[in-house]
Amino acid sequence: MRTIVVICTGGTIEKVYSEQSGRVENLDGKIDGYLRMLRLPETRVVTVRLMNKDSLEMTDADRETVLETVREHAAGGTPMVITHGTDTMTETGLYLRDRLEGLRAPVVLTGAMTPLGFERSDGLQNLTESLLAAKILAPGVWLAMHNEVFPIDKVRKDRELARFVWK
Amino acid sequence: MRTIVVICTGGTIEKVYSEQSGRVENLDGKIDGYLRMLRLPETRVVTVRLMNKDSLEMTDADRETVLETVREHAAGGTPMVITHGTDTMTETGLYLRDRLEGLRAPVVLTGAMTPLGFERSDGLQNLTESLLAAKILAPGVWLAMHNEVFPIDKVRKDRELARFVWK
Amino acid sequence: MRTIVVICTGGTIEKVYSEQSGRVENLDGKIDGYLRMLRLPETRVVTVRLMNKDSLEMTDADRETVLETVREHAAGGTPMVITHGTDTMTETGLYLRDRLEGLRAPVVLTGAMTPLGFERSDGLQNLTESLLAAKILAPGVWLAMHNEVFPIDKVRKDRELARFVWK
Amino acid sequence: MRTIVVICTGGTIEKVYSEQSGRVENLDGKIDGYLRMLRLPETRVVTVRLMNKDSLEMTDADRETVLETVREHAAGGTPMVITHGTDTMTETGLYLRDRLEGLRAPVVLTGAMTPLGFERSDGLQNLTESLLAAKILAPGVWLAMHNEVFPIDKVRKDRELARFVWK
Repeated sequence: MRTIVVICTGGTIEKVYSEQSGRVENLDGKIDGYLRMLRLPETRVVTVRLMNKDSLEMTDADRETVLETVREHAAGGTPMVITHGTDTMTETGLYLRDRLEGLRAPVVLTGAMTPLGFERSDGLQNLTESLLAAKILAPGVWLAMHNEVFPIDKVRKDRELARFVWK
Repeated sequence: MRTIVVICTGGTIEKVYSEQSGRVENLDGKIDGYLRMLRLPETRVVTVRLMNKDSLEMTDADRETVLETVREHAAGGTPMVITHGTDTMTETGLYLRDRLEGLRAPVVLTGAMTPLGFERSDGLQNLTESLLAAKILAPGVWLAMHNEVFPIDKVRKDRELARFVWK
Repeated sequence: MRTIVVICTGGTIEKVYSEQSGRVENLDGKIDGYLRMLRLPETRVVTVRLMNKDSLEMTDADRETVLETVREHAAGGTPMVITHGTDTMTETGLYLRDRLEGLRAPVVLTGAMTPLGFERSDGLQNLTESLLAAKILAPGVWLAMHNEVFPIDKVRKDRELARFVWK
Repeated sequence: MRTIVVICTGGTIEKVYSEQSGRVENLDGKIDGYLRMLRLPETRVVTVRLMNKDSLEMTDADRETVLETVREHAAGGTPMVITHGTDTMTETGLYLRDRLEGLRAPVVLTGAMTPLGFERSDGLQNLTESLLAAKILAPGVWLAMHNEVFPIDKVRKDRELARFVWK
């Protein structure tokens, strides 16, 4: 039985449709609910909710909070998944990598182009992939989406294609 | 084998999530795709696409277009379903009722609070109900949603509750 | 607020896939769980579990139990839906019709060709339709499936087509 | 752009519910349809259909056919996923391992406890995981399911738990 810590920060993957506003918004956390749809008999998943924000609104203070949480769990070698908005996912990833020396566990950033539970969503695919990546990748900061694993300094978002590409 | 004409005008029921804008928008028609998920062996469904608009943007010219289409099919006694945004659904319904004398077929307005294919959507339920209502209701203009059938002059939208209520 | 009683007897609509046996079986009731996926704000649904059987195994004693339950609720004019296996659905329906004189509420039999929650299932469509049919049909014994409502003496199952047809 | 070959042999993951027999059977291939639900922009997936069998019916001649297909693609270093029934998945895996010397690519066996598209199915999760595992694991024969990756000689099926466990 291995432990994986899932750090939730918001982003498109967790957005919900508001019937009152007609917009998609970060109102309630969705990660726990969708994790229950996966079978994880050999894995203890611990979710940590830090914030629930569109990643365009993330500040350096928010990134510092993420960093502290990662540091805390990395000390014991626990693999981590961070769910995050795609617009500044690489920014947060590089922020972490620059401040985490001698990292002893993989830290895998993931998110979605379409919210969990919406038709054609990539959210559950990315969550599934990042949990497996957290188990088998070497220590380091990674981004996992759409059946691809990128070292955090080799990846950028292509907005028109609505996906991440190698840089 | 009975024919039902489904007149598509847009509204929340047909909205899609745009990965480029992060908003839900009326970009592509969705009714045909979701009708294929229903079993309708004794029914010939003919869909007519008139427009794909948020109902707050519907004009009287749009309503006139709907009216003409309804008149055309009502002449032969063909039951009709109209998919429509909820914000002005009753307005369009009353517009039709006031101009359709001696209606010989049921005209059933429906829509959704959450777009088809989004988690917890009521779209397919409402589509299913309105197709059955079109088969068994008496001639007249009706609104069918959430297991309730309202004569068009007895119903109003309650925005906070996100549903229609008797008036 | 109207009450509808849903009487559950089993059948394909409630079958589940057993990972131990590799077969689909009537193990746990499914109707309540799927009813929660529908929006029924103006309706009080009361489910009554009588049995959970493949309808080929239903006996006349089982039909008598159904009859007693229907009688009890029909006295107050409460509409009813009966979920039932398709193989003997018409047999049970005729059994009820022959023994219910002066019926004051609609009794709507329904079921499914593929269990609720399996890909391409017709279960939720049929459940949705039968709940609406229960609200708007005249008193009598009916069968509602696949956007069609049949008087119970005018319908038979076509096994090859996997649906009900007019007789 | 990397290529992954997906070799389809049947098993529970591909079973469908037959409305005529009321049983789940290996009638039509399902892997291609479900692969289309995943986003694989950096991956070229080539599916190869060898058979569509319950794995209890697989013969050594069938395993020889799988072996030949694996050999053909392994020569070029192409990672492979094999979808397979769970009852004899380890048997096929060991058969391959014993006959593949100097394997230059990962070969990942996967399957499902509940067929793709049935409620609570683990099929899409396992397919997602095995495709990622095929990209990042070292050469060798592996089994990937339920967020766990096992070397083929360290795993056995636990029928009561309906999952694979370490041995």
